[in-house]
Amino acid sequence: MKSLIDIMDLSVRELDELTDTALDIIAHPDQYAHACEGKKLATLFFEPSTRTRLSFEAAMYELGGHVLGFSEAASSSASKGESVADTAKIVSCYADIIAMRHPRDGAALVAAMNATVPVINAGDGGHCHPTQTLADLLTIRREMGRFDHLTIGLCGDLKYGRTVHSLVNAMSRYEGVRFLLIAPDELRLPEYVRRDVLDAKGIPYTVTNDLDGAIPSLDILYMTRIQRERFPDQSQYERLKDSFVLTPEKMARAKDKMAVLHPLPRVNEISVAVDQDARACYFRQALNGKYMRMALILKLLSQADGAPAITLPEGLSGDHRCKNRRCIVQTEQELPQRFVSSDGVWRCVYCETAAE
Amino acid sequence: MKSLIDIMDLSVRELDELTDTALDIIAHPDQYAHACEGKKLATLFFEPSTRTRLSFEAAMYELGGHVLGFSEAASSSASKGESVADTAKIVSCYADIIAMRHPRDGAALVAAMNATVPVINAGDGGHCHPTQTLADLLTIRREMGRFDHLTIGLCGDLKYGRTVHSLVNAMSRYEGVRFLLIAPDELRLPEYVRRDVLDAKGIPYTVTNDLDGAIPSLDILYMTRIQRERFPDQSQYERLKDSFVLTPEKMARAKDKMAVLHPLPRVNEISVAVDQDARACYFRQALNGKYMRMALILKLLSQADGAPAITLPEGLSGDHRCKNRRCIVQTEQELPQRFVSSDGVWRCVYCETAAE
Amino acid sequence: MKSLIDIMDLSVRELDELTDTALDIIAHPDQYAHACEGKKLATLFFEPSTRTRLSFEAAMYELGGHVLGFSEAASSSASKGESVADTAKIVSCYADIIAMRHPRDGAALVAAMNATVPVINAGDGGHCHPTQTLADLLTIRREMGRFDHLTIGLCGDLKYGRTVHSLVNAMSRYEGVRFLLIAPDELRLPEYVRRDVLDAKGIPYTVTNDLDGAIPSLDILYMTRIQRERFPDQSQYERLKDSFVLTPEKMARAKDKMAVLHPLPRVNEISVAVDQDARACYFRQALNGKYMRMALILKLLSQADGAPAITLPEGLSGDHRCKNRRCIVQTEQELPQRFVSSDGVWRCVYCETAAE
Repeated sequence: MKSLIDIMDLSVRELDELTDTALDIIAHPDQYAHACEGKKLATLFFEPSTRTRLSFEAAMYELGGHVLGFSEAASSSASKGESVADTAKIVSCYADIIAMRHPRDGAALVAAMNATVPVINAGDGGHCHPTQTLADLLTIRREMGRFDHLTIGLCGDLKYGRTVHSLVNAMSRYEGVRFLLIAPDELRLPEYVRRDVLDAKGIPYTVTNDLDGAIPSLDILYMTRIQRERFPDQSQYERLKDSFVLTPEKMARAKDKMAVLHPLPRVNEISVAVDQDARACYFRQALNGKYMRMALILKLLSQADGAPAITLPEGLSGDHRCKNRRCIVQTEQELPQRFVSSDGVWRCVYCETAAE
Repeated sequence: MKSLIDIMDLSVRELDELTDTALDIIAHPDQYAHACEGKKLATLFFEPSTRTRLSFEAAMYELGGHVLGFSEAASSSASKGESVADTAKIVSCYADIIAMRHPRDGAALVAAMNATVPVINAGDGGHCHPTQTLADLLTIRREMGRFDHLTIGLCGDLKYGRTVHSLVNAMSRYEGVRFLLIAPDELRLPEYVRRDVLDAKGIPYTVTNDLDGAIPSLDILYMTRIQRERFPDQSQYERLKDSFVLTPEKMARAKDKMAVLHPLPRVNEISVAVDQDARACYFRQALNGKYMRMALILKLLSQADGAPAITLPEGLSGDHRCKNRRCIVQTEQELPQRFVSSDGVWRCVYCETAAE
Repeated sequence: MKSLIDIMDLSVRELDELTDTALDIIAHPDQYAHACEGKKLATLFFEPSTRTRLSFEAAMYELGGHVLGFSEAASSSASKGESVADTAKIVSCYADIIAMRHPRDGAALVAAMNATVPVINAGDGGHCHPTQTLADLLTIRREMGRFDHLTIGLCGDLKYGRTVHSLVNAMSRYEGVRFLLIAPDELRLPEYVRRDVLDAKGIPYTVTNDLDGAIPSLDILYMTRIQRERFPDQSQYERLKDSFVLTPEKMARAKDKMAVLHPLPRVNEISVAVDQDARACYFRQALNGKYMRMALILKLLSQADGAPAITLPEGLSGDHRCKNRRCIVQTEQELPQRFVSSDGVWRCVYCETAAE
């Protein structure tokens, strides 16, 4: 692995190695304080994200390295129409590793195809956000002591939440895992995730809209935000929203060792009063994200070889165009369209949207 | 002291210590060049301020530390509705000390109640800006050699200028100080500052709108900007503005050793021609601000203990709401309202506005 | 030389020294890794430019120094109306050297007149951008092995492209250089550049709008972008634009050793397919820019002496005002107007626009 675009780029063994490295950093921070001396991380944030960006910057500083970059597209040459490919090529002259957030699905893959330094996907539109999943995984390991035999409740917006989809993917590789999918009908886990991941691997799951009823059986409760804009009918939103807010009252019904996770930022889906509860792990989760990013930077820098990290896969090309309007192929100059088949479905290589 | 929210958090003795440290840094910069090695300062600027932010960053670099952060709210998660409390908690995972500027009165206090690292208030709305006052104080000490027995002219907008109020507070603790309050009638020093500080401590002061007449008696002239927007009647502004512009002609009437201070940025209230005058101290004042911030960072890091810096004071709560529309309590999620009494007046703990 | 405002501030000998230093840095990077330890570069970007800013930041980090600054005017005190002069004076308190980009012609000169540290012009409006020319020159030296006896094609927008004008100026000092000026009629090299530089020095040049015909004779092809907005008649733009796009077909007609340069960002004036061609130097050019900026920072820091770098030249003053609406004299507080004569033409000292 020379870049990280999707959490599934990492094998279970590689995930274990990253987690081990993170735990070693936590135990012996001084041994890593100069590990990246003289190295530079570029944080290319085409859309703002304090937490993720500052976490990467803190990670690089704690490894003894430098950081440069931008925090929004307006401060970058993208406002002059520069392609992601050109930005990746040029920033490879200035930095040893790149962390990139971009509003378009597939942008990180295009960067990795063109950069001559490792690229970390820090979020590409609604597609992937693998370092959030790394933070989630280290939190599960530290709080529960294991990845297997866990009952995981996913609560809130399971339809659009990319961190939820990645976590389902990542955790579905461990034994004895089962899911409770707790969401309003409008925001259920997409059919293709259930079919391609859960059903395909024979993983048990329950679909419900009753957080109160689900909470007693959970080892892990992964909360996400429900956005008002997702509901065409506002009265429906008003009627539903409180059922998916985590309160001390709901926490009283949960196991003593349940861990509450949240990718943050939280708006009001977890009451501030829950923060005092020892089972509230979401701020420790932010800290874990920093350690996993340190481990990832170390791993990728140790494997860098000066060649583009990723080559465009062979596959179907021709006149077909990806129909996902948020896909990078819609805006990037002279980017070849390409589809690859998995399980009989042809999908765009950049955004994984199924071709018609 | 584990955080600095208001200049009055510092005792006279602590102020003296900070000033001594700053003077020692000026004399022996090399001895401090690695004092903060491996430490990280987060500059969280929810509204822009070049001077203050760059001064903090330069300070941290000259101590051998790192800096991360953001320079405007649009680059931060605040644009997703995250609370100040959550931001403070999370940034505590990434940095060893926080300098925060925020448009809401009381925001720095809320940050200090939630952060597990020291918080420096780099300006909270119209409320406080204590590190500017530290810059002012070091400048007075270096230019005049003392804090006591000084005649201080405050000129310009004395009504809204928070740095003026803080300086009045800070200097009123020294012996033999007297003030000339030089302002148009519309922008006089607020009644409560005069009553609660000057009258309460028996400090002599004169109210005037005649800069020309006042200048010969001054040891210190503290200039501030008069903003056109403050005047409902524009013809009134036009008629007045030149009386409060400092020119070489006015300087000719001042003492040989008078020191001219200004918090900057200056627009046109001091003529550029005055810059050549040896008594113009405002650029040296900016340099002094850097040294005081170095001293402050050192002091707070030496006292950090991993616990929130400040606990919400006991006091009156209940159904009362702060009526200050710029107070942080109006926007922060689930922030308890609290009033405390000083001198028989109940004031909001966050913004110090008197309850009705 | 204590600041770099215009490429012509550098003698041929100084350019050779800078180039030699850059080549030595490339050969022995470790010997420079701590050259600027404890020094701070301020990047003051009043308008965004990823490439230039990140290149300066990477340069300073590779010299072991620190970087602070801002990446757009909205994050700076300029939004409060602060003058360039005051910003330069204050930032001199916080940094050891300044790199400044500003939308106004002449802004860098005003900064250098007021700063007490060296100032590098990183672009002042449409006026100068000397470090881009440094990148161009190192690329020519590395790709061709020499500066003299070269046939240089300049293609695209020769009217508004400031990097083109600077390159003509810089290269016109070497023997045996000739130019092919390849542009649509609307975007030809300005008359005054041809007259004052090429004709004055007796340098041969050909004016053409035929890239296809010109390409076989070139040693260097310097491409620039043609902006749609430059054409009053859009149908004219549509008819012309493809003639000035570099494609593999056009490259097939060029010399085996021709070097293609471009200041970047590229939009579509060079086909992405050309990137694979070994003669495409524009990404190496970006890398060369970093090395020349390292050499320049080293040179200027070694010559810094704490005094303003530049004094306002004597010359004609009085009631004349510069008629260039983009000149810094139009907005800067109390900036004296001054004209100096070169070859019988009186020009504004800030923007070099001829007086009427």
